[in-house]
Amino acid sequence: MKYKEIREQAYEANMQLPKLGLVLFTFGNVSAADRGQGIFAIKPSGVPYEELTPSSMVIVDFDGNLVDGGLRPSSDTQTHAVLYKHWTEIGGIVHTHSTYATAWAQAVRDIPIFGTTHADHNTVDIPCAPPMEDARIEGNYEYQTGFQIMDCFAAKKLDYREVEMMLVGNHAPFTWGKTAAKAVYNSAVLEAIAKMAVLTEQINPSAPRLKPSLIQKHWQRKHGSDAYYGQEGC
Amino acid sequence: MKYKEIREQAYEANMQLPKLGLVLFTFGNVSAADRGQGIFAIKPSGVPYEELTPSSMVIVDFDGNLVDGGLRPSSDTQTHAVLYKHWTEIGGIVHTHSTYATAWAQAVRDIPIFGTTHADHNTVDIPCAPPMEDARIEGNYEYQTGFQIMDCFAAKKLDYREVEMMLVGNHAPFTWGKTAAKAVYNSAVLEAIAKMAVLTEQINPSAPRLKPSLIQKHWQRKHGSDAYYGQEGC
Amino acid sequence: MKYKEIREQAYEANMQLPKLGLVLFTFGNVSAADRGQGIFAIKPSGVPYEELTPSSMVIVDFDGNLVDGGLRPSSDTQTHAVLYKHWTEIGGIVHTHSTYATAWAQAVRDIPIFGTTHADHNTVDIPCAPPMEDARIEGNYEYQTGFQIMDCFAAKKLDYREVEMMLVGNHAPFTWGKTAAKAVYNSAVLEAIAKMAVLTEQINPSAPRLKPSLIQKHWQRKHGSDAYYGQEGC
Amino acid sequence: MKYKEIREQAYEANMQLPKLGLVLFTFGNVSAADRGQGIFAIKPSGVPYEELTPSSMVIVDFDGNLVDGGLRPSSDTQTHAVLYKHWTEIGGIVHTHSTYATAWAQAVRDIPIFGTTHADHNTVDIPCAPPMEDARIEGNYEYQTGFQIMDCFAAKKLDYREVEMMLVGNHAPFTWGKTAAKAVYNSAVLEAIAKMAVLTEQINPSAPRLKPSLIQKHWQRKHGSDAYYGQEGC
Repeated sequence: MKYKEIREQAYEANMQLPKLGLVLFTFGNVSAADRGQGIFAIKPSGVPYEELTPSSMVIVDFDGNLVDGGLRPSSDTQTHAVLYKHWTEIGGIVHTHSTYATAWAQAVRDIPIFGTTHADHNTVDIPCAPPMEDARIEGNYEYQTGFQIMDCFAAKKLDYREVEMMLVGNHAPFTWGKTAAKAVYNSAVLEAIAKMAVLTEQINPSAPRLKPSLIQKHWQRKHGSDAYYGQEGC
Repeated sequence: MKYKEIREQAYEANMQLPKLGLVLFTFGNVSAADRGQGIFAIKPSGVPYEELTPSSMVIVDFDGNLVDGGLRPSSDTQTHAVLYKHWTEIGGIVHTHSTYATAWAQAVRDIPIFGTTHADHNTVDIPCAPPMEDARIEGNYEYQTGFQIMDCFAAKKLDYREVEMMLVGNHAPFTWGKTAAKAVYNSAVLEAIAKMAVLTEQINPSAPRLKPSLIQKHWQRKHGSDAYYGQEGC
Repeated sequence: MKYKEIREQAYEANMQLPKLGLVLFTFGNVSAADRGQGIFAIKPSGVPYEELTPSSMVIVDFDGNLVDGGLRPSSDTQTHAVLYKHWTEIGGIVHTHSTYATAWAQAVRDIPIFGTTHADHNTVDIPCAPPMEDARIEGNYEYQTGFQIMDCFAAKKLDYREVEMMLVGNHAPFTWGKTAAKAVYNSAVLEAIAKMAVLTEQINPSAPRLKPSLIQKHWQRKHGSDAYYGQEGC
Repeated sequence: MKYKEIREQAYEANMQLPKLGLVLFTFGNVSAADRGQGIFAIKPSGVPYEELTPSSMVIVDFDGNLVDGGLRPSSDTQTHAVLYKHWTEIGGIVHTHSTYATAWAQAVRDIPIFGTTHADHNTVDIPCAPPMEDARIEGNYEYQTGFQIMDCFAAKKLDYREVEMMLVGNHAPFTWGKTAAKAVYNSAVLEAIAKMAVLTEQINPSAPRLKPSLIQKHWQRKHGSDAYYGQEGC
């Protein structure tokens, strides 16, 4: 099997989605990039998770061209390709329609930063990109979705290396990370944050955002130069 | 065993309902039609899922007459028969009382098309038929339920080949498809859409419907003549 | 083992509670009555479900006196005894703190009859008894809880043979039936109805009650003299 | 293995968190104290639950100094140390980000005592401490979190031996008890109470608090001098 290692990474990461309760049937896909070879491995389109194998992962380059594999890649492949091409430090991307994150996307709202669970992973509200303009939809839709994501980050002056999750308005969440495993982790975290945020507003419609000093404290202890969460070298 | 193949299809599809979390106890039933023989196989009434076998499926014709089987068929059998008789291209029907779809039915509201998860499966709001008029209830209730469903589609000018799910007001959902397996898939999708829609309105009471260009894009990429979702021939 | 059969019935029914997701830790208890011997078997107090055995069930008479068993019976035993003594046709009782039914009890509201899932089991709103008066609380609390339940049924002119579930205000649900297994079934149905009803009001704050003709139709097809749901003799 | 017994207690208690659905990934930690030796065993920081072993538990003294163990202790270790040092009768502490309790913490609200499930465990609203002042955040944050918790109890005149659960505003819940197992039990109970309370307010925005006579009755039957819940000596 060619591209064995990256296919196995993509396979393992895809198989986490149903285990974490983030997908129904074939909704959702994970890719894993091999920067050295300039390619990524992605889930084949519409194939049930229980039928996946490492060898069924499809190999595609960062321009979205099919490189290797017997199956058609995920219909969202062009979105992954655009993000890998422009955001050069990411190694994995996940797209799901997980229930609570998708509900925020459908509500076309950023998820407010209400607590430390959120601040452990992001210092800002989870951004929600506006629905795509018609001219873009009529073009290459999945390719343009990549730009919709990047434009949202540019407009909000966000750095994809710090904020690894977002919502596409009326659509659903995307997450990424240095590895496919980290991107999957981010998808599960986003779903948890999204559920807590709905409940927070239900319990207190005027719930306050977390104050800047607490945001910085929680972010720094996990991600700052003096981070002390986790084990050395992890 | 006579009607072996269709009984096995109906059995396999029925057994998916508890696995997908769509039924409690004996609530719900699936049927599978054999158009060549003019019959369908349906769950026996009130029998727990764990006691079902392919041979316990009951064979009924499209006029609702018992053809083969040692048990009484589902109490909803006449509804299935009416739909098979008039909607000649469907091969499977599912009725459940799944939690979120039933809540929308009890609220007597169509489910608004809030996002792409919805548009991947339907281009319109999921229709909710009004509760049945008393004259119909006093007649053959389950037989009339079939007409309640068809009248709703006629009034809203919907095509059952495109919209494969609906709600009966104050009652619960029905779904169908070319096969029983597809009808079960539609029941799970409807439940997911119903849950996301409740949450969407909670997060944003004035959440916008998905705009027509996005509805068409998502529908066409899965169901249009140039569909590119899934594998060739799937 | 004395009272072997009724102990096994009570044991089996108790073990269904965690399987159906109706209890956390030791919250909840089931009893099963043997009318011929004038006793019932009930869960011992505070013992985890995974440590229960048929022989650990405690035997009590309808005046609440301990008859047989090495453990202290459920703290709710007097409530069960009162109901068995006065409602002479019931053979099983369940008390849980299941999430959604308990939330309605805490809200001190009857659960409105919003749909056919409800009407398949009851023709009326699920009654919620008012919180107990202080004079009763200061007496034998669990004994008085039995009268709180019966007084509620008398005030609302309900028949315990038709309505087999209710809420005690600020407290939690009780259900019963001809057997302990039926009482457990009723607890799970009540929880499902309670969850659907919360969601129904969320989706449509002015959701209509099910109309009388539909209530009667659904009740009669399952419970009337010409019932046609289920198999003959079931 | 040194400190074998207390490490095993801490290990067993930590492993209950994912089983009870109270944690995602590595969110959350349990410690168990050995008062005789003046130390506690706590989860190592950032290590997945499925990789934990008794020997990976880290031993720390009540001043927060590392005593034994090859891994870095939980980032919340100083909070545990402060509580053990000042609240001299507790033997176990749990911190989670469980969904519903965290939502109340994010809403910065006490959880009202709406029913007997709550009163079986507490006679007061579950207290929510205010978010920490900036001066404290800039100091030793986790150490100060311990004082944030104790100050809240002092301000509300609560006794940590009676109220074994609380929320830190904008953050998440903490629970404790005479043993680590009891502290874990309290975390699960808190999550259940938190979920029921959200639903109670949804069903009835003016739901009444449980009246004092019922609060005392339920508390006393489980915790009073004449308690009759559970088995003798349990």
